[in-house]
Amino acid sequence: MTLVGTAMLIPTAVALYYKETKAVLSLLVCAVPMIIIGLLVIKLTPKEDNTVLRMRDGFFIVAAAWIAMSALGGLPFVISGSIPNFFDAFFETASGFTTTGSTILTDIEAMDKGMLFWRSFTHWLGGMGVLVLTIALLPMLGIGGQKIMRAETTGPTMDKISFTTNESARNLYLIYTGMTVIEIVLLMFGGIGFFDAATHAFGTLGTGGLSTHSASVGYFNSVYVDMIITLFMLLAGVNFNLYYFLLSGKPRNMFKDPELRTYLCIVGGCTLFIAGMLYFKNFYSTIGESLRYSVFQTTSIITTTGYGTADFDLWPVTCKVILFVLMLVGGCASSTGGGVKVIRVILTAKLIKRAADRRLHRKALTPIKVGGKTVSEHTLFGVTVFMALFAVTIIGGTLLVSLDGFGLTTSLSSVVACLCNIGPGFELVGPTMNYALFSAPVKILLSLLMIAGRLELYTIILMFTPVFWDENR
Amino acid sequence: MTLVGTAMLIPTAVALYYKETKAVLSLLVCAVPMIIIGLLVIKLTPKEDNTVLRMRDGFFIVAAAWIAMSALGGLPFVISGSIPNFFDAFFETASGFTTTGSTILTDIEAMDKGMLFWRSFTHWLGGMGVLVLTIALLPMLGIGGQKIMRAETTGPTMDKISFTTNESARNLYLIYTGMTVIEIVLLMFGGIGFFDAATHAFGTLGTGGLSTHSASVGYFNSVYVDMIITLFMLLAGVNFNLYYFLLSGKPRNMFKDPELRTYLCIVGGCTLFIAGMLYFKNFYSTIGESLRYSVFQTTSIITTTGYGTADFDLWPVTCKVILFVLMLVGGCASSTGGGVKVIRVILTAKLIKRAADRRLHRKALTPIKVGGKTVSEHTLFGVTVFMALFAVTIIGGTLLVSLDGFGLTTSLSSVVACLCNIGPGFELVGPTMNYALFSAPVKILLSLLMIAGRLELYTIILMFTPVFWDENR
Repeated sequence: MTLVGTAMLIPTAVALYYKETKAVLSLLVCAVPMIIIGLLVIKLTPKEDNTVLRMRDGFFIVAAAWIAMSALGGLPFVISGSIPNFFDAFFETASGFTTTGSTILTDIEAMDKGMLFWRSFTHWLGGMGVLVLTIALLPMLGIGGQKIMRAETTGPTMDKISFTTNESARNLYLIYTGMTVIEIVLLMFGGIGFFDAATHAFGTLGTGGLSTHSASVGYFNSVYVDMIITLFMLLAGVNFNLYYFLLSGKPRNMFKDPELRTYLCIVGGCTLFIAGMLYFKNFYSTIGESLRYSVFQTTSIITTTGYGTADFDLWPVTCKVILFVLMLVGGCASSTGGGVKVIRVILTAKLIKRAADRRLHRKALTPIKVGGKTVSEHTLFGVTVFMALFAVTIIGGTLLVSLDGFGLTTSLSSVVACLCNIGPGFELVGPTMNYALFSAPVKILLSLLMIAGRLELYTIILMFTPVFWDENR
Repeated sequence: MTLVGTAMLIPTAVALYYKETKAVLSLLVCAVPMIIIGLLVIKLTPKEDNTVLRMRDGFFIVAAAWIAMSALGGLPFVISGSIPNFFDAFFETASGFTTTGSTILTDIEAMDKGMLFWRSFTHWLGGMGVLVLTIALLPMLGIGGQKIMRAETTGPTMDKISFTTNESARNLYLIYTGMTVIEIVLLMFGGIGFFDAATHAFGTLGTGGLSTHSASVGYFNSVYVDMIITLFMLLAGVNFNLYYFLLSGKPRNMFKDPELRTYLCIVGGCTLFIAGMLYFKNFYSTIGESLRYSVFQTTSIITTTGYGTADFDLWPVTCKVILFVLMLVGGCASSTGGGVKVIRVILTAKLIKRAADRRLHRKALTPIKVGGKTVSEHTLFGVTVFMALFAVTIIGGTLLVSLDGFGLTTSLSSVVACLCNIGPGFELVGPTMNYALFSAPVKILLSLLMIAGRLELYTIILMFTPVFWDENR
């Protein structure tokens, strides 16, 4: 509460600057009580608490925190009347904090600038900030950070470099802020005002994708802006632990990371293929233009950002299938991106290759290595089960969303776009459309899927199992 | 060759009965040389051959046999001019032998009866016959049956009851034939002529789905016929090993099989849900009618038969999502059905449950049991990798099919319908449509996917890897 309330003071300042009285009041009327109540709770909590946290408590705290943040963060939208319906505001804020970027807004530009700033700022907080802050703040409240970590670590970590202490969390926070500042400055060089530069930098670094314009990044219609945002989306999809190599003056080590290499190869390969297809099918008249739109959309989708410079729903169906697959792949582990993560795709591919090999040669189980290190069979097995859970979640989600009756592609792609934290899907939830069409229960479901995707599935899904609430187990 | 050629003599007799000179000649002109060449090869092969077969030889023989059967079996269609294009004929025959039931025919009723009989007969041969015959015949040629088995066994077998000797293969063959005869008789009781009764019984027991009418089983418009075909589709989706319990006078043991129970529960649950939805959304005016169409389509899809009595592509999207999931599930292991098989779904569900449990309770790995028997971790791991390969095949296939430019749902569902050996998909390949629209390369791809699905993926997919052809490994 304190965190969300304090964060609201920044958009309040923006609203003040733009003299938006209603926005200022709506934000303050939420922020002030939240900060006070939050601080009181912190004050009243005994410092020396001997309560032992169990696994399920850790999961509950993380899941509940994300749901609460989304509910509280959405209040200013409701109070200001910019998003009058509570569930819509919950959806929009969950979309912000989980860095999804799905919107229910039909007329974005009509919203107060202070509100739009808050909406984009939730991306920045969510992207890495909230992750880091939760890890850094909770231990200060006397709650063991280690157990929470288990719920929030993104992906199977090969090297446990960081995240375990407040120290490294703060380093990460500095890298993230530094990159944001650089992007804002670079965008302003391109002739974009501070407001648009900041909101889009928030959406880029958090791999969010909510824009302050209905036409998304396409609004600026500038090659320079496209390239800057493409670059920073690409950077946001990288494992942030690798940036320590940059800081320690060994940037070459960074490119030894097999996940990073695969990630860059996927982006490169898909960009070229899509650009070729767009060019030869006469979607764009020059190769340069085809590459420009292709690289932006490929990067935007694989990093699960969701910004758009073109309506990819109109592209050839093969390009759409590729983008759909990239949605599922997502960014690297420990990046701000969603999806199943590149490392899991690599491991699955290696497992399939091994299985095929063994069918031909009846030989002993050869260990699977990534970057020279053997991955334990236990981890590999876990990856395949995670993949299965991911597939089951998509199928179950699609089944429920389909009750709204909107067609297979719309139902399926809305679930994938939310679970993988992308934003736009295809057809009725395509890049030029929005999520306003869904019923309130489906909006809640999609919001929970966003949070589940952000917290690597188990956290949220466990809360819906009877065993989670069974005190005797 | 001998097998396919000999099998052609039966439709030749049918064609003779209907006095279809062209069909008789087209079939004989293929059958006679094939029988002679085949017998010559068998004669000329030394009985005492000391060649040791390696794994890859086994895979090659099985895959090549299926591809050759489809090519040879399609020749009468080309020669008679009923399917003038060779690739179309290959597709149609592969669809027959693999018991898929996808058709490229736009005017089924225009075809000669002898040809239609051959087309349906390939289902019957394919369903179990060809499987059994390959196992029983090849050892007679001096080729070890054991190695071939590895390529053709359907699903992870819990109990290795059968299939290892010619004896049990023959028993299976008798059960299969017996059930076919019973279905033909029962259908004829319903006032259907021998020709239609036989062709539809072939399609039912083989879980094929090719019909002699454009309107499929809906042509007969009879509750009795619907129910008989529903019953036999359901029986064809059961693990045929279980029928030994029937023969041995212990039918109760049959229902102790957890896979059978789950299979029946899925069919029952989905039937009720779909019927309810169809009734309340006013697709049918009575509950009885809703149940009739629902149980037929549910059974037809989960058993991967693909017969239709209604255009399910017009049904509510939730029903379509359910049918889509059932397509992937498929029948029981060692049935004539396709898909990933019910047992794999059960094991995956148990794995997900265990993974969730372990996240809450940090306890030791609890063994997973099915029907009281512990399943080895090795088998479980293999199941998850198989599932991943299945998903990758669907994605890869969709990508290639999409090059024909026909929309996401059409591309995806055509791949699933072929890989899972169902027949109809959604949209342009929906129950009232056909596969004529695709280009020749896509038809070949879909044919190979049918064969890959029928042979549990690895067999065909391995042939497209460089390592398969690398003599040094």
